[in-house]
Amino acid sequence: MSRREEARDEAAEGFRLQDLPIRDDLRGRTPYGAPQLDVPYALNTNENPYAPSEELAAALSRGVAAVARGLNRYPDRDATRLRAALAAYLDHDLDVGEVWAANGSNEILQQILQVFGGAGRTAMGFEPSYSMHPIITEVTGTAWIGVPRGADFGIGLDAAKEAITRHRPDIVFLTSPNNPTGTALPLSVIREVLAVAPGMVVVDEAYAEFRREGTPSALSLLADHPRLIVTRTMSKAFAMAGARLGYLAANRAVVDALQLVRLPYHLSAVSQIVALTALEFAGELLGAVKQLRAERDTLVAWLREHGFSVADSDANFVMFGEFADRAAVWRGLLDHGVLIREVGPAGWLRVTVGTPEEMSAFRHALLQVTAESRATPGTTGGSGAPRGPAAE
Amino acid sequence: MSRREEARDEAAEGFRLQDLPIRDDLRGRTPYGAPQLDVPYALNTNENPYAPSEELAAALSRGVAAVARGLNRYPDRDATRLRAALAAYLDHDLDVGEVWAANGSNEILQQILQVFGGAGRTAMGFEPSYSMHPIITEVTGTAWIGVPRGADFGIGLDAAKEAITRHRPDIVFLTSPNNPTGTALPLSVIREVLAVAPGMVVVDEAYAEFRREGTPSALSLLADHPRLIVTRTMSKAFAMAGARLGYLAANRAVVDALQLVRLPYHLSAVSQIVALTALEFAGELLGAVKQLRAERDTLVAWLREHGFSVADSDANFVMFGEFADRAAVWRGLLDHGVLIREVGPAGWLRVTVGTPEEMSAFRHALLQVTAESRATPGTTGGSGAPRGPAAE
Repeated sequence: MSRREEARDEAAEGFRLQDLPIRDDLRGRTPYGAPQLDVPYALNTNENPYAPSEELAAALSRGVAAVARGLNRYPDRDATRLRAALAAYLDHDLDVGEVWAANGSNEILQQILQVFGGAGRTAMGFEPSYSMHPIITEVTGTAWIGVPRGADFGIGLDAAKEAITRHRPDIVFLTSPNNPTGTALPLSVIREVLAVAPGMVVVDEAYAEFRREGTPSALSLLADHPRLIVTRTMSKAFAMAGARLGYLAANRAVVDALQLVRLPYHLSAVSQIVALTALEFAGELLGAVKQLRAERDTLVAWLREHGFSVADSDANFVMFGEFADRAAVWRGLLDHGVLIREVGPAGWLRVTVGTPEEMSAFRHALLQVTAESRATPGTTGGSGAPRGPAAE
Repeated sequence: MSRREEARDEAAEGFRLQDLPIRDDLRGRTPYGAPQLDVPYALNTNENPYAPSEELAAALSRGVAAVARGLNRYPDRDATRLRAALAAYLDHDLDVGEVWAANGSNEILQQILQVFGGAGRTAMGFEPSYSMHPIITEVTGTAWIGVPRGADFGIGLDAAKEAITRHRPDIVFLTSPNNPTGTALPLSVIREVLAVAPGMVVVDEAYAEFRREGTPSALSLLADHPRLIVTRTMSKAFAMAGARLGYLAANRAVVDALQLVRLPYHLSAVSQIVALTALEFAGELLGAVKQLRAERDTLVAWLREHGFSVADSDANFVMFGEFADRAAVWRGLLDHGVLIREVGPAGWLRVTVGTPEEMSAFRHALLQVTAESRATPGTTGGSGAPRGPAAE
C-alpha cells in the first residue's frame, strides 16, 4: 500500500455518497440506465441493429481527419452548418434559426427544462413514457406531474385537458411515438393540448422515422404554434446512438431562448462533422429504417398470432404481454442470450426490433420460455404464459 | 414566399424571446461567449496555438474508423477506459472511480452544481475569475456570491475565511491558475479554505499544465479531503478545445454522486476515443506546453520592460495594463488583426500566449497602438498609454 493510499484510508475511510452535502431531493436516488450486459442479442435499448456501412465508416474517418488539425481551436459555437443540414433533412421549410442541436436529445431536453422549468415550475407527462422526462425534470428542480395513459396507451383527450387546466404545467411532454408503448399521437390531440396548455409543449419524436405510413409528424404544426417544440435524435433512424446527437425544431424565439442556458461550445467539432457526414448518408440509413419497419410489422403480427397482447407500434420496438410475472420471462429470455427491457405497465415487456436473425432468436427464445413456464409452473408460477388469449 | 412561410408570418409575426414563458431570472440575460471573428491572430480564448500533429491527426482518424462501425450502439456509459487513462495521466495514485469525464469542463461544473447546488443553495467565487462559474451557478438555480480578490489578484485568506464563515456557501470555487489573472494559489490557502468551508471546494485547474516550476496542484490534497474536487480540461494543454473533454478528480463518493445527475450516455463513443488517442500523445503535446510556458515568460518580461503592468502568470495567457481606456487599445489591436480579450479588472486586458510569430505580431501591434494613442490624444484620449510606469 502506497503512502498516498494509507493517507486516503485514514481520511476517507467509510466516506460514502450519503456523507456528502448533496441536494436533499437527490438523496436515495439511483443512477438511471439500462444494464450494459454483453449478450448475443441486445434488444433492450432500441438501438438500430444495422451498423454504419464501410462507406459511411470511411467517410466518418475522413471527416474527422479533415477537422483533426483544427481541434486546438474551439468549435463553431452555433453549429451552423450542422443545423442547416438538419433543417434541410426535416424538409418542413425550416431555417437554421429554427433548429438547435446538442449532445443527444437528453441534453436538448435538459436545456428546455433549464429555460422553461426550474424551482417553482412544473412539467407534465403521460405515463408510461420515456423515463428521462421526469428524471431530467426533477434534476433541474422542476416538479413532475405524471398523468396515466388510457388502456389503449393513448392520451385521453378529456383527461389530458382536465389535468392541464387544473395544474397549468409550464411544460407538457407529449411523445409520438411514445416509448415504451410505441403509440403515436394524432395531430388533433397535439393541437388540442396546444390550445389549453399555458406554457411550452414538447413533442418528443425520437422514433419519428419509424412511424407507419400515414402517421403525421408534429413538425407540420410548427408554423402556427410558437410554443411548440419538436425534438428528434440521430440515435435511432440514423444508427448513431454512439455519436450522441439530438436536435429540435421550434420557433426561432425558442432557439434564441436556449442560448441563455446552453454551455458555450457544448457540441464538439468532431460531433458536428460526424453528424454532418451521417446526414449525407440519409438515403442509405433510411433504407434500413424501411427494413426495420417491415420487420416490426412482421413481429407484431407474429406475436398476435401466438396469443400475445401487442400495443400498436410506430417505433423500432414492440411492447407485448401480458405476463403474470414478467420478470421471470425477462430472465428466461436472458438465459437464452436475448436481453430485452422490463419496462412499461405491469405485465408487459419491450423488445427492440433487430435484424431478421435477431428477431428469429427472440421468437425462438420467447416460445421456449413461455412453454417452459407452462410446463414447470412450480418454477415460474406459470408466469410466462400470456394472460391474454391463450397461446396457440 | 411559400405557403408555410406565409402561415408562419401570420402566427409568429413579432414573436420574440420575451414573449416566451422563460424563467423570470433569465429575462434580460444575453448568451455568454467571446466573439468568433475571423482574424489573422486569434489570441482571445486561451486556445493552444499548436495544431495536432499529422501523426496525431492520423491516429484520431484511425481511432474513429475503429469505433465507426459500432456507432449504432450506445457508448460505454461509464467511459471506463478513458477515465482510467485520465487517472494514469494525472499521476497521483488515482483510481478510475476517482475520476469523471464530460463534454468540456463546463459540463463537469454543471454536474457539480446540479448535485451540490440548486434552489436555496449558494456558491462562492473570488472575482475576477472564470465567467462561467457564476453563469452555470445561476442557470442551475443556485445563488452566486462573488468576493473580490486583493490588489495582487490573489485570494486574501482573512477576507476569504470571513466571507465563507459568514455566508456558509454550499460550494466554494477556487481557481489555480485563475482566469483571467493567471494567478496560482499556494496549497496553504486551499487547505485553509477546506478547513472552514462547510460544503464542497472546487479547484478549477483548467490551466494547470502551464504553471511555473514549483507551483503545486491541488491533486496532492485529494487523499485527505473528501469534499475537494479538482477539475481539469483537455482544451488547453492537450490542444483539444474542439474535442470538448473536461474531467475531474475527487473522492469516489463524489464521482458516485455525479451519477445521479449525469445524462446517461453523455459522452459519445467518438469523444471517448478522441480523448484516449490524444492522451497517447501526451509526451508530444506537453512538449508544446513547455514551449508556451517559455514564450509566456518571455512575453511577461517584455511587457514589463516596456512599462506595462503584468500580473504574474502560471497560465497560457497574460493579463496586462493598465489603460485609461482599454476598449480603445482592444479595438486598436483588432485593427492590426490581433484579437485579444477585454476582460478582467478595469484597465486590464488579457492576451493568450501563441506561437513566436503570433507573439511578435502582438508586440508589434501593441507598440503601434499605444504609440498612436500617445501621438493623437484627441482620438483616444491618450488612453492607450499604460497608467503604470512610463513606456520606454
